[in-house]
Amino acid sequence: MTGGRVFADITMSLDGFITGPNDSVELPIGEGGDRLHQWIYDQASWRERHGQEGGLTGSDDDLIGEAFARTGVYVMGRRMFAHGEGPWGENPPFHGPVFVLTHQVREPLVKEGGTTFTFVTDGIERALERARAAAGDKDVSIAGGANVIRQYLEAGLLDEIEIHLVPVLVGDGVRLFERLGTEPIELEITRVIEGPGVIHLRLRTVK
Amino acid sequence: MTGGRVFADITMSLDGFITGPNDSVELPIGEGGDRLHQWIYDQASWRERHGQEGGLTGSDDDLIGEAFARTGVYVMGRRMFAHGEGPWGENPPFHGPVFVLTHQVREPLVKEGGTTFTFVTDGIERALERARAAAGDKDVSIAGGANVIRQYLEAGLLDEIEIHLVPVLVGDGVRLFERLGTEPIELEITRVIEGPGVIHLRLRTVK
Repeated sequence: MTGGRVFADITMSLDGFITGPNDSVELPIGEGGDRLHQWIYDQASWRERHGQEGGLTGSDDDLIGEAFARTGVYVMGRRMFAHGEGPWGENPPFHGPVFVLTHQVREPLVKEGGTTFTFVTDGIERALERARAAAGDKDVSIAGGANVIRQYLEAGLLDEIEIHLVPVLVGDGVRLFERLGTEPIELEITRVIEGPGVIHLRLRTVK
Repeated sequence: MTGGRVFADITMSLDGFITGPNDSVELPIGEGGDRLHQWIYDQASWRERHGQEGGLTGSDDDLIGEAFARTGVYVMGRRMFAHGEGPWGENPPFHGPVFVLTHQVREPLVKEGGTTFTFVTDGIERALERARAAAGDKDVSIAGGANVIRQYLEAGLLDEIEIHLVPVLVGDGVRLFERLGTEPIELEITRVIEGPGVIHLRLRTVK
């Protein structure tokens, strides 16, 4: 196997949700879901990626910059794409190739700033092969949603998950881990970093 | 308010479960649920509490000893009591007063080693009042199950939760956080300790 690692990088509430309740195209992260991502919005690396200046620096910012730097290609589900396409606008924050898992054949969508959405209809394994080839020595980020991350995890194709654990109980929403088989999946904690109001857990899948 | 703090202290999988699948009286922690508590069984403080000698020392052991030392009284639900009564035997590991929330009036049950189970039928608030009075300057441990911890949390009666987060996805079982209202509950991380294969998170409820 050539190329880098395959990882997911996602913010989760203490009760396991990655959105607030009632997510939709109009409200992609659900009611109150902004609370989960509060830690990220003011960080300099995040702002830079979204065409804004200034922002906070420090360990949280370093983590975000690190994730952007390691990523050569993003893979995401059709629903995440549909929810994000509007908010991301003409210059999406990926600045590189994005493979979108879908059942509908569609021409690639070229955006400003280096982002190209390529629609892949032949399954998660083939999508990952193409992503790996495009990523070269860089890593492949399984961007979401939760069901796509779960599919890669269950297929044994995910090397690493970085979970930004936020100490809030949102009560309802989209769960990161749900409907997994009952065969336990073991992970290994390889890094723990405490930010203000968030704990960054890096986990390696045990194969 | 006099007396100490009210806290819960519980082991949870990364996907939010405190048991494996299909828990029952015969299998109180569910299929494969032992995996969650692996970190605890070999620690010296745990073994001592259960009448065994030897065991591991270190930061995990210190945490367990600390939890035992701070606790004056335990409060638990009827189901936890029913599941535990057999396995705990004639000398249960509490060595102090235990208040059991139930709807059925029953005489106190006096066991060896200082453990007395008192059955309380007038609700969680009254049970806590009695527990506080019995605990004196020590803390009250809301021992479980998950629904009892959630009731105290939602009622604003819990000061602190210590979660021992184990990096395994068990896929199914009893969730610690479920069926909470959709009003978010904010917590504050006050301590993070990494053990081998477990992260100990201490969280304070924000009131």
